[in-house]
Amino acid sequence: MLHQDWMRLALKQAQMAFEQGEVPIGAVLVHDGQLVAEAHNEKEQRNDPTAHAEILVIQRAAEVMDTWRLTDTNLYVTLEPCPMCAGAIVQSRIKKLIYGASDLKGGAIGSVMNVLDYKLWNHQVDILAGIMEDECALILKNFFKKLR
Amino acid sequence: MLHQDWMRLALKQAQMAFEQGEVPIGAVLVHDGQLVAEAHNEKEQRNDPTAHAEILVIQRAAEVMDTWRLTDTNLYVTLEPCPMCAGAIVQSRIKKLIYGASDLKGGAIGSVMNVLDYKLWNHQVDILAGIMEDECALILKNFFKKLR
Repeated sequence: MLHQDWMRLALKQAQMAFEQGEVPIGAVLVHDGQLVAEAHNEKEQRNDPTAHAEILVIQRAAEVMDTWRLTDTNLYVTLEPCPMCAGAIVQSRIKKLIYGASDLKGGAIGSVMNVLDYKLWNHQVDILAGIMEDECALILKNFFKKLR
Repeated sequence: MLHQDWMRLALKQAQMAFEQGEVPIGAVLVHDGQLVAEAHNEKEQRNDPTAHAEILVIQRAAEVMDTWRLTDTNLYVTLEPCPMCAGAIVQSRIKKLIYGASDLKGGAIGSVMNVLDYKLWNHQVDILAGIMEDECALILKNFFKKLR
């Protein structure tokens, strides 16, 4: 499968969030070309400030893989992660982060800060940005337009 | 209760982590002078890379308070938070962070980066560092000495 195909699955998760009244962000985690876990933002329905798509997909993947070390995995997420989620990506030793749209007001992969790019971390994450960027940005735009 | 008294409770949590073979870090969350939640690092036993003391105490407090907005709460933690946890503190709108020891290799409240200090965040967190610093550092030192 191509990056676009995995991102399409992450977008499906974002769509589920949208339908549940959550900010529409979705994520999938892939290991050896296989889908390990999927998640979307559930902050409002869970009343949990940490229930971002990335945190949930990491927790689910760690459970499935029975280890907290998500070595050699790819994380696909529709939006540039916030500092919390970027930190969780470092903590979980994810190999590669692929995201769609940039988050100019809160993104921690370069937009407002760069949490991944520190030589002191004992783990370096590969980054690929802009995969299906327009679709990932559009679903957010539509969500906030509907809110107003 | 004084800051030291709450930090002593966080240290008790760290001690529980120590006894369970976890890196000994503890946290408590306080609202209106009342203890809302306690937690310690459970990463190894849960096989969950996000199961840091701060994440767990925030999740528990949000459940107890039945809201993800932990407005007007104080978070006490024995060690300077990592980027993931610092990000979670911003996400959950915690009013004040009080920590013990600094983490020169991973701390995100100034040691290797400062996740809290961005004008773009829609929430600013007060910071008080160095409460019971020696005791908070010693338990970590003892843990890593025992590991070697």
